Amino acid sequence: MPSTSLTDPKKSYGIHVWGEGNFIVEDGVVKVNYGNKPSLIDLTKGMREKGYKGPLLFRFPHLAAQNVRTLFKHFERAKKEFNYKGKFKAVFPLKVNQFPGFVIPLMEATKDLEYGLEAGSKAELILAMSYTNLGKPITVNGFKDREMISMGFLAAKMGHNITLTIEGINELELIIKEAKRLGSPTPKIGLRIRLHTGGIGIWAKSGGYSSKFGLTSTELLEAMDLLKEHKLTDRLSMIHFHIGSQMNHISPLKKAIREAGNIYAELRKMGADNLHAINIGGGLAVEYSQQEGQSSRNYTLEEFTNDVVFLLKEIANAKDVQEPTIFTESGRYVAANHAVLVAPVLELFSQEYSEEILRLKEKNPPLVQELYDLYRSISTKNAREYLHDALDHMESLLTLFDLGYIDLTDRANTETLVHLIIKKALDLLRNKPSKEIKAILDRVQERYLVNFSLFQSLPDYWGLGQNFPVMPLDRLDQAPTRSASLWDITCDSDGEIAFNLDNPLYLHDVDVENEEYFLGFFKVGAYQEILGMRHNLFTHPTEATVAFDEDGNYTISEITEAQNILDVLDDIDYDTKEIERRIRKLLEESNTIAEDEKKEILGELYLYLSENGYLRTINFSEGG
Amino acid sequence: MPSTSLTDPKKSYGIHVWGEGNFIVEDGVVKVNYGNKPSLIDLTKGMREKGYKGPLLFRFPHLAAQNVRTLFKHFERAKKEFNYKGKFKAVFPLKVNQFPGFVIPLMEATKDLEYGLEAGSKAELILAMSYTNLGKPITVNGFKDREMISMGFLAAKMGHNITLTIEGINELELIIKEAKRLGSPTPKIGLRIRLHTGGIGIWAKSGGYSSKFGLTSTELLEAMDLLKEHKLTDRLSMIHFHIGSQMNHISPLKKAIREAGNIYAELRKMGADNLHAINIGGGLAVEYSQQEGQSSRNYTLEEFTNDVVFLLKEIANAKDVQEPTIFTESGRYVAANHAVLVAPVLELFSQEYSEEILRLKEKNPPLVQELYDLYRSISTKNAREYLHDALDHMESLLTLFDLGYIDLTDRANTETLVHLIIKKALDLLRNKPSKEIKAILDRVQERYLVNFSLFQSLPDYWGLGQNFPVMPLDRLDQAPTRSASLWDITCDSDGEIAFNLDNPLYLHDVDVENEEYFLGFFKVGAYQEILGMRHNLFTHPTEATVAFDEDGNYTISEITEAQNILDVLDDIDYDTKEIERRIRKLLEESNTIAEDEKKEILGELYLYLSENGYLRTINFSEGG
Repeated sequence: MPSTSLTDPKKSYGIHVWGEGNFIVEDGVVKVNYGNKPSLIDLTKGMREKGYKGPLLFRFPHLAAQNVRTLFKHFERAKKEFNYKGKFKAVFPLKVNQFPGFVIPLMEATKDLEYGLEAGSKAELILAMSYTNLGKPITVNGFKDREMISMGFLAAKMGHNITLTIEGINELELIIKEAKRLGSPTPKIGLRIRLHTGGIGIWAKSGGYSSKFGLTSTELLEAMDLLKEHKLTDRLSMIHFHIGSQMNHISPLKKAIREAGNIYAELRKMGADNLHAINIGGGLAVEYSQQEGQSSRNYTLEEFTNDVVFLLKEIANAKDVQEPTIFTESGRYVAANHAVLVAPVLELFSQEYSEEILRLKEKNPPLVQELYDLYRSISTKNAREYLHDALDHMESLLTLFDLGYIDLTDRANTETLVHLIIKKALDLLRNKPSKEIKAILDRVQERYLVNFSLFQSLPDYWGLGQNFPVMPLDRLDQAPTRSASLWDITCDSDGEIAFNLDNPLYLHDVDVENEEYFLGFFKVGAYQEILGMRHNLFTHPTEATVAFDEDGNYTISEITEAQNILDVLDDIDYDTKEIERRIRKLLEESNTIAEDEKKEILGELYLYLSENGYLRTINFSEGG
Repeated sequence: MPSTSLTDPKKSYGIHVWGEGNFIVEDGVVKVNYGNKPSLIDLTKGMREKGYKGPLLFRFPHLAAQNVRTLFKHFERAKKEFNYKGKFKAVFPLKVNQFPGFVIPLMEATKDLEYGLEAGSKAELILAMSYTNLGKPITVNGFKDREMISMGFLAAKMGHNITLTIEGINELELIIKEAKRLGSPTPKIGLRIRLHTGGIGIWAKSGGYSSKFGLTSTELLEAMDLLKEHKLTDRLSMIHFHIGSQMNHISPLKKAIREAGNIYAELRKMGADNLHAINIGGGLAVEYSQQEGQSSRNYTLEEFTNDVVFLLKEIANAKDVQEPTIFTESGRYVAANHAVLVAPVLELFSQEYSEEILRLKEKNPPLVQELYDLYRSISTKNAREYLHDALDHMESLLTLFDLGYIDLTDRANTETLVHLIIKKALDLLRNKPSKEIKAILDRVQERYLVNFSLFQSLPDYWGLGQNFPVMPLDRLDQAPTRSASLWDITCDSDGEIAFNLDNPLYLHDVDVENEEYFLGFFKVGAYQEILGMRHNLFTHPTEATVAFDEDGNYTISEITEAQNILDVLDDIDYDTKEIERRIRKLLEESNTIAEDEKKEILGELYLYLSENGYLRTINFSEGG
């Protein structure tokens, strides 16, 4: 039912809050605000004409590159403003997005900047060694074994500008051993520091003293002793900290910088003459909110860069040490907005009941009759009371059914009548919003079945309750009238984005049997791909890269189709030849199939095996 | 520090609560209570001798088969007890575990039972068609497109006993269309019913009226009309509901059975003459608790089966319809305990500070001196007061550091002294437990770095906070003395199982440089594998099947090693040849490496590319 009465849905779905000018609404559709401004609906239709169905992940490499440039620009501006003498460098942390469609164009587009890659595992280090432009920074964080440290040495020998950030004294001991074994060039050494700062009190989880990562002051002194003893002090070039992802407030960062700045100065004073960089990690927040006034962060990029530069200058000057190179590892900020998931709506599971579907009998159970009377006589004056009566009667009637006193037709009439009464009551009470009415409204939304897996494509929604901006790709010149909850196609009741009054979603009333309707989920470019779960064996969606040439014309390239069924089964270690053999055998041995039909059936089955597992034809028209 | 003072850790880690007699502690080790009772530590060492490092997933197919038999046995017993005339059948829902090492032996071991597979997606349906023993039940739930329905028809033609459960009227319309196109045999039809029952109130999420799945009463009547119109009423054989996973209480199920039983009777009365089965879904809970008195479910298997049989008999008799076949889809109950993850502890990040590491100066800042005095003079009488003073001084000293007033040595002394004071205070106050002391204790545990990825191997811990039983594999004749938190090897601060006073974990004080120490995570056989996330590109662990022959001797087979780095990169669509080419090129062009060394380095790199990404050598001895 139309719910414009209680909330005034914006047709632009908060794009001015989260869109950062990268996507705009024009002529009733969402457009990429770049080059010749293609609309997402046209890009989608283009892909579908090529035969790709199911969910699509569009990558926009220009956005990732632009984010990096914006970061550099702001730091350069702030450096100029404060006459800061240190440099600015940055790396992209691969854990946020390791996919080639993201990494390769990003490295290509940022060749001219002091920009490289961060690795947190051996596989990521191989990527960093392969794709970082030679001479640009590589950092290696996380727990490391001898093999990973050895890989770091090999990278240094190959000419890479690599820093191994040690997370514990043990790793430093391994580096010392490898330095003896492999000789120079030795990778640079970073020390991850365990900050006092980090949320509330000294023991807080993220970044604080009981954090998973980093060296205490005592361990820093021990590390300095070890470096001096083994004549490796000149390799110490960086200290590193990270106060946590999606930092909503600037104040913890400012506190952390004070702390790290003083540690930097103290270590230099203790003889770390080549220590010249402070790596402030990531954490730069992304705006996911679709609501005015519910911003995900309380600072601008300008404030962020000014604070970092100003504080580090102040400490360096006070302690009389050189102004450090500022190093960042922002990942979410760089990657999130480069990818948009587009998924078709397959079906609407309507909560619409009309009077015509009532199957009233000559003689109905008294409470059903009473429901009917309530429905006929409900008015503004009695609406709230009648609504309560109806809900009460429903409970009684459902109990009567469970106990065998009324039949299925009576039960169906109960459902229909209660829905009709709720609908009327909501309409009559639309100018008297109350908590109760809102709560009911919250639950009578339209269900949109969407051809995607929430577990595969929005794992952070499942795990962390992270909302992503969502909106239809067209019809944006028409007011959406239905409060919507979204269902995915997995067999899991958690595969739902429920309607939420604090973050309401209104969609259009479409007839999906005759018209297409696509939803776009934005800012899914950080973490969501690699965390994607293969629940029900649904795989990574079909992806495509949208790139613009100098004239602003776009091309779609690097299309990677979602895995087909045989490949998925192969991935979880099935012998797919054996599966084919078993199916052929069943067919051969079947005596309910005519011989000439068997070949046809086998052909049909092979076709299904060669297609991806997302849904295709769900209505009489072609959907999916 | 030893914390036996506040909690009395059991050496058996609650194995009598969660182990169900499948695993036992004997001679200080955990043993598989089957056949010749191998210990998990021996199985682990056997695998490591074969060269498999990193985390290991052991499968015990006898446990899955045994769970199925127990289920059948209990239903047969209850049927006998109540003189129930309906049959009992069941399927395993593939979404819970689709891996061949689980599915294939399960189907092999249950050939003699009316036991098959449930599919919720096309890929799962292919598995069900390939591995269900012919004639045994297949059910197909979840949202379906025309192609999936068509696959169901083909399965029926091949001779499979398949039931398509429709989730909405639209699917029934597709079935009717396919029946016309493909002719008989037609798959059987199930109707998923939307229950009134489901948590609190009528709108509750799981199973209730706003659930993602199922037909309302009104839609059931519509479906009956459609079936009659198209002469398919005789295909309607089952109604289905599912009230949610890991059902902790029995009462919602009883309510649901009353409701479903009446719907069954009503549909039969309306002419559904071949309707003979009620599929009560899954939900049978697994015991994950390691604590006496914190049981995950309030019912026994006996109570569960008795309730189901008794209630259905009662309704059938009252309504004078035949007693239905009882059909279940328990997945978690069948799969959870068949798999155990074993992961090596790599390192202990100790919170132990001893007086010797103090670096006190001739003249210390006054507050550091005061901390030292507190440490020297703390006693039972003043312990609480001095503890508060120490924490207070620490805050001040850390602030002084951030403002540049004290140096790194002073800061290190602060850390050490405060730790020493806390340790002494906890010892002095051990007989006076308080909330505050518990809270501090909660945070001064030992950190055990464990060679696994929590995101890959325990995704439900990350997403849902689900605890899994965890214990060391040996040393079980020694009291564990350290309150432990577990760190995984990902670069993510969420990759931690923090110490939790409500569910405390105590581990042994081991010197991992000289001795091995392995942790077992139990009951990870349901959902965890397919939901596993490739965070930091860590993949499914190396798996192995432990099977017993008739004499009780075990063999280890079906070993599937964790993916190597090149395969992981190939999986996320890298051109691995290009990666190899790039690395070779860098090496060739390097001028810091001698020509004869280049070949050696390339060999070393290829070795790393051919190994999995988990950690290996972390100490001077061989670890990982």
